[in-house]
Amino acid sequence: MKQLLAVSAVLFTLAPLLDPSPAAQTARVRARDLQIVVGTLPAGPQNAITDVAGVLVGHATIVRGEGTLKVGEGPVRTGVTAILPRPIADLATPVFAGVFSQNGNGELTGCHWVEEAGRCEGPICITNTHSCGTVRDATIKWLVERTGGIGQWALPVTGETFDGYLNDINGFHVQPSHVSAALEGAQEGALAEGNVGGGTGMTCHGFKCGTGTSSRVVSIDRETFTIGVLVQANYGVREELRIAGVPVGRELSKSSVAPRKDQGSILIVVATDAPLLPTQLKRIARRAALGLARNGSYAGNGSGDLFLAFSTANEAAGLVGPATVRALGNDQLDPLFLATVQAVEESIVNALIAADTMVGVNGAKVEAIDRAAVREILAKYGRLVRP
Amino acid sequence: MKQLLAVSAVLFTLAPLLDPSPAAQTARVRARDLQIVVGTLPAGPQNAITDVAGVLVGHATIVRGEGTLKVGEGPVRTGVTAILPRPIADLATPVFAGVFSQNGNGELTGCHWVEEAGRCEGPICITNTHSCGTVRDATIKWLVERTGGIGQWALPVTGETFDGYLNDINGFHVQPSHVSAALEGAQEGALAEGNVGGGTGMTCHGFKCGTGTSSRVVSIDRETFTIGVLVQANYGVREELRIAGVPVGRELSKSSVAPRKDQGSILIVVATDAPLLPTQLKRIARRAALGLARNGSYAGNGSGDLFLAFSTANEAAGLVGPATVRALGNDQLDPLFLATVQAVEESIVNALIAADTMVGVNGAKVEAIDRAAVREILAKYGRLVRP
Amino acid sequence: MKQLLAVSAVLFTLAPLLDPSPAAQTARVRARDLQIVVGTLPAGPQNAITDVAGVLVGHATIVRGEGTLKVGEGPVRTGVTAILPRPIADLATPVFAGVFSQNGNGELTGCHWVEEAGRCEGPICITNTHSCGTVRDATIKWLVERTGGIGQWALPVTGETFDGYLNDINGFHVQPSHVSAALEGAQEGALAEGNVGGGTGMTCHGFKCGTGTSSRVVSIDRETFTIGVLVQANYGVREELRIAGVPVGRELSKSSVAPRKDQGSILIVVATDAPLLPTQLKRIARRAALGLARNGSYAGNGSGDLFLAFSTANEAAGLVGPATVRALGNDQLDPLFLATVQAVEESIVNALIAADTMVGVNGAKVEAIDRAAVREILAKYGRLVRP
Amino acid sequence: MKQLLAVSAVLFTLAPLLDPSPAAQTARVRARDLQIVVGTLPAGPQNAITDVAGVLVGHATIVRGEGTLKVGEGPVRTGVTAILPRPIADLATPVFAGVFSQNGNGELTGCHWVEEAGRCEGPICITNTHSCGTVRDATIKWLVERTGGIGQWALPVTGETFDGYLNDINGFHVQPSHVSAALEGAQEGALAEGNVGGGTGMTCHGFKCGTGTSSRVVSIDRETFTIGVLVQANYGVREELRIAGVPVGRELSKSSVAPRKDQGSILIVVATDAPLLPTQLKRIARRAALGLARNGSYAGNGSGDLFLAFSTANEAAGLVGPATVRALGNDQLDPLFLATVQAVEESIVNALIAADTMVGVNGAKVEAIDRAAVREILAKYGRLVRP
Repeated sequence: MKQLLAVSAVLFTLAPLLDPSPAAQTARVRARDLQIVVGTLPAGPQNAITDVAGVLVGHATIVRGEGTLKVGEGPVRTGVTAILPRPIADLATPVFAGVFSQNGNGELTGCHWVEEAGRCEGPICITNTHSCGTVRDATIKWLVERTGGIGQWALPVTGETFDGYLNDINGFHVQPSHVSAALEGAQEGALAEGNVGGGTGMTCHGFKCGTGTSSRVVSIDRETFTIGVLVQANYGVREELRIAGVPVGRELSKSSVAPRKDQGSILIVVATDAPLLPTQLKRIARRAALGLARNGSYAGNGSGDLFLAFSTANEAAGLVGPATVRALGNDQLDPLFLATVQAVEESIVNALIAADTMVGVNGAKVEAIDRAAVREILAKYGRLVRP
Repeated sequence: MKQLLAVSAVLFTLAPLLDPSPAAQTARVRARDLQIVVGTLPAGPQNAITDVAGVLVGHATIVRGEGTLKVGEGPVRTGVTAILPRPIADLATPVFAGVFSQNGNGELTGCHWVEEAGRCEGPICITNTHSCGTVRDATIKWLVERTGGIGQWALPVTGETFDGYLNDINGFHVQPSHVSAALEGAQEGALAEGNVGGGTGMTCHGFKCGTGTSSRVVSIDRETFTIGVLVQANYGVREELRIAGVPVGRELSKSSVAPRKDQGSILIVVATDAPLLPTQLKRIARRAALGLARNGSYAGNGSGDLFLAFSTANEAAGLVGPATVRALGNDQLDPLFLATVQAVEESIVNALIAADTMVGVNGAKVEAIDRAAVREILAKYGRLVRP
Repeated sequence: MKQLLAVSAVLFTLAPLLDPSPAAQTARVRARDLQIVVGTLPAGPQNAITDVAGVLVGHATIVRGEGTLKVGEGPVRTGVTAILPRPIADLATPVFAGVFSQNGNGELTGCHWVEEAGRCEGPICITNTHSCGTVRDATIKWLVERTGGIGQWALPVTGETFDGYLNDINGFHVQPSHVSAALEGAQEGALAEGNVGGGTGMTCHGFKCGTGTSSRVVSIDRETFTIGVLVQANYGVREELRIAGVPVGRELSKSSVAPRKDQGSILIVVATDAPLLPTQLKRIARRAALGLARNGSYAGNGSGDLFLAFSTANEAAGLVGPATVRALGNDQLDPLFLATVQAVEESIVNALIAADTMVGVNGAKVEAIDRAAVREILAKYGRLVRP
Repeated sequence: MKQLLAVSAVLFTLAPLLDPSPAAQTARVRARDLQIVVGTLPAGPQNAITDVAGVLVGHATIVRGEGTLKVGEGPVRTGVTAILPRPIADLATPVFAGVFSQNGNGELTGCHWVEEAGRCEGPICITNTHSCGTVRDATIKWLVERTGGIGQWALPVTGETFDGYLNDINGFHVQPSHVSAALEGAQEGALAEGNVGGGTGMTCHGFKCGTGTSSRVVSIDRETFTIGVLVQANYGVREELRIAGVPVGRELSKSSVAPRKDQGSILIVVATDAPLLPTQLKRIARRAALGLARNGSYAGNGSGDLFLAFSTANEAAGLVGPATVRALGNDQLDPLFLATVQAVEESIVNALIAADTMVGVNGAKVEAIDRAAVREILAKYGRLVRP
């Protein structure tokens, strides 16, 4: 009963985060609000993965308790983020997809099938490392109950990053109800960033981090396509952090102490409406690493850097029968490659900028990056952009 | 309470299956008992994966209910098989490992890390498709509680094959307690085969199948090494079944009706005490496909054919600091390659021969292969071996 | 001048081998002529890779000299085989393709691009290990001169197997003129097998071997598709040879001595007219290993087992601009997988059956398999098929 | 005869480039000479791949003719660069190695075997795209003649990038004699950069480029290890060029016209004396992409971005018999990962800074980057480092 109450409490506290009204969003600060612009290509209307039509995102955030760690009780600082490649009504229609592992110290289930069939079925959920399996099976359960049928079996894509520095990760607090909440709450439009959903307990380059998103719009052969990115960012050492090419980490680490090792991870999901074949989406996924590199990652041994790219374009992507599919030429992909690199780079900056200082298990505290200091440093290096 | 009772019932019925006494085992019929011998290399004492010293196997079998499917109630025909690469006391010491996907229509968690670090940490569990995540997280939970520490995080290898034809797979009946039971019950010596553990609800080439095991002993440069294999076999069409090169499926299908499509899967775990590097174990894993092929698989689209090979030899396999590791020469591996092919081939035959007819959801019945008929067919083709 | 004369001699001796008249072909014996039938699916009209419409094959065979090895002079027992995925006039149009390495102890150039773009451009040539580079560059040269343009650069697929046991491989006898001869002589219809082209100096399971081919025709959703296979077979130990599941090698090795190690290689090219995406062709390539396994390969350390599959179906496979491509459903691929396995299995048997005893450097002699003995053994095991 | 004279002319002009005396080197300007320092880790004594003990590098540069392109005659602007992982006397001893393809629009032979066996045998040569095969076979020829034995066969690693904008690439001007010259001329110590060897005709981010090198020294567990990098850089669009995080390309492109597409390639070779297993070297190779990204690559479709990493540490790397090998812990690799990223980033800057303006076929001209302008831009963005 206590558990049930806890769950409803969570769902209740979730509400404001999922509020899609502009008011709720303006509370969040993003890189561009600080005159930090990464790359040259234009962003989409929301500068978010949801700029790709039909893609929905929902978060379930679980924050509960304070003080000394009691495994199984808390403190809890975790959650689930759900990315729906298509609206719920169309979720039975797969999307073409490709994956890439820059450093495999992490879990992303479903990849054997993505590699084999070049497609991804159902929602993609992200959570903490030790609840990844529960979230995977709960996704199947939700699919069975909600969509009334998923074929004979499902092999969902579920990922994780580690939040055990702030969260009672061995308490296994994520429940199927949280997965349903994230899935049912998924929506288009502006997205919450920072300490939300699976990103709740993340740390990046020694600063509080979490979920971030960005998008780019490109024109190819007179058609307009969108690349949207969502990251759950938890990697990196402070010294190496670069923002817009500026050595922000080195400047900031002069005055502060940071965790020494790169022990986190980063999950990157790239969505696009460009018509691409599985082979081409694998190429997109591999470019995510290049955006990550620009912020100062060297893909440390402890980091699970796993990337998935999918395209909403071909409704025949399931290839359940003879199908006609459309694809851009390989020679035309450069704008999409560049867009991916830039949107990944900016998503990470957004995740850093949006996150708030958090205190977790045993009083462990991870401070948010000092936004004013970041602006000052970028100004010093001539990299702030006129509004 | 009802649930708890159900679990204890399961644990109770488990006992005889896990009985390591020779008496319990003689009840099971194996390929060699029928004068069917696959390949030329000698088998180990138990002709089982447990012939590799230190490797333990445990099963939790969940059989409950009959008749009409009521999702969440049953009938239940499923389970968990746990393979411990090392005894529990040594389980914190990783083993070098390699993986291969012959057809990725399946799940095998932990593979990103196996690919990256060339090692496998903790037990390998196998269950049904929709409980794979639960078993993965439960394995972490067990590791945390039982071994008192797993480093900061764990990325266990957990696999699955589909048993939804006989089992209420969307009832999600596998619980953490079953995982603990399989892990705690793991032992050396002779193994139960057929309808046990994760193999409980399996079907192979149109016949009831399940778990099977076999081993081979080879001599390299005056040292003796063992290859041990365990399969959870659930793949194939009847027409294509070959045993010892004989077209048994074609002969048998003359008189019976079988499911048409190859919709199952096969998980193959290869253990060895030969000192091999990760690169070399990946080579071993890739040879498992060649053994599978000899029984008539064409790796159908619906089949998740995922293979893992590990070596118990190097205690420094974790590579947590500068280490000295031993490895055989690549030029010396041919006997191990051949042993892998033969042990996989025989493991599948053992799984088929050991399985008993089973009736599951909605009265669905999968018949065991007719052992007498198999012997007759092999005799006709001159392939029975004198005892 | 001597060299030029030698080349023309070769071109002269080539003529009969390339003669497409039925008379020339009937001289060759194939597996089916001996009542050996592998698998159940029907073969195409020529039971050859050329049953896939538009696919052409040409051989340049270089046999010169006898006796003691003088590096650079001979004896020479080598050649080039050229596979054109499309007729010369259409060769600028790429084909979708996929590759797989069962054991990478070999060279197959161009694979980075096949993996990246999922396509293959221009002809595929096969030769001996130490002339693979020369043949690759000569293919580019031919493309530039013959097709008048290949875009800016070419990355042709060129493969090799080792013939140094019979051939003066370090004499580098393959010249660009041989490559042109193989390419220009490429034709449809019946193919020479055994000691021809790149297969000239091959040994397989301890017997003289070489080039072999086979095909299968399947029906999917009321359309008819062909799988055609060509192998250059040079792998295996005698003891393990199986033909149609019968342990022929073990039976034959009772009375003869054979090389002990598996030191050769096998290159397998699979062609199809079924409309398949790159991802799906990679799946086809991976099935080639299953056919190979049935003849007794365990993919020995010394063997370069590299497989390429391509589809002639989509003329837009180059993806040079937005394109519409057609693909079968993944659920429909099983007949093609099975056809691949069977056509590979039979191609190898054809290569063995067609090859003639050869004497090479320093009088080294590799004997052809005894066709009459093979028939007797298959009869004994009840595996000869009524005509 | 004419050809022979041409070759000797080349060898003659080679001499100064290969002069290892400090005087010869000071003629070349490097990034650090301009107060441009990339990253924080210290460089080795030569800031070159040859800082890894035992690694030798030789160049054969072929520059001949001017004016209108006559295929087969010139103008010629190409060459060969040879990297010897070990001194010639030890070249029969393989090195552990790993490869990674960030974008496979290129050739790097020998990779199937590197992937399979985790090792690399003999020298690594780099040349132009259409001579890659010739250089590969010539490497075998040289190995046979010079080292008197390479086992039965060789599968050398040979790479390429495209120089057809400046060079008569379809004239196939690289001869075995150039390969021998590069191999025989290989030496330790300071290296020529820019328009030399395989890098002769390269263009990068719209500027003349070529060969570049750099190194980093790290300390792990009280041992000192070196990472050395050599690049043949031919990729990128001007707009995206970044040096030390500064958008140099955007600044420079305001005043100049540059080729629009990313059509080149980059080959990156990483050498280290750190004892690493093949799996770990593959991890190093994958980090090369992160260094590349920092200079502004998005791995364009036309770019062949292929990376090889090898370790000189284990003399038993050939694994020809049971061997004991040493390896660092995975947890200890972060400094090597970071060193790789930084050395790759600096190598590319060195290649750009060292290259001189070149005029090639049909008067095509590629201008060197304006070093003074680069310094001004870096000064403006506060990124010049005090000497």
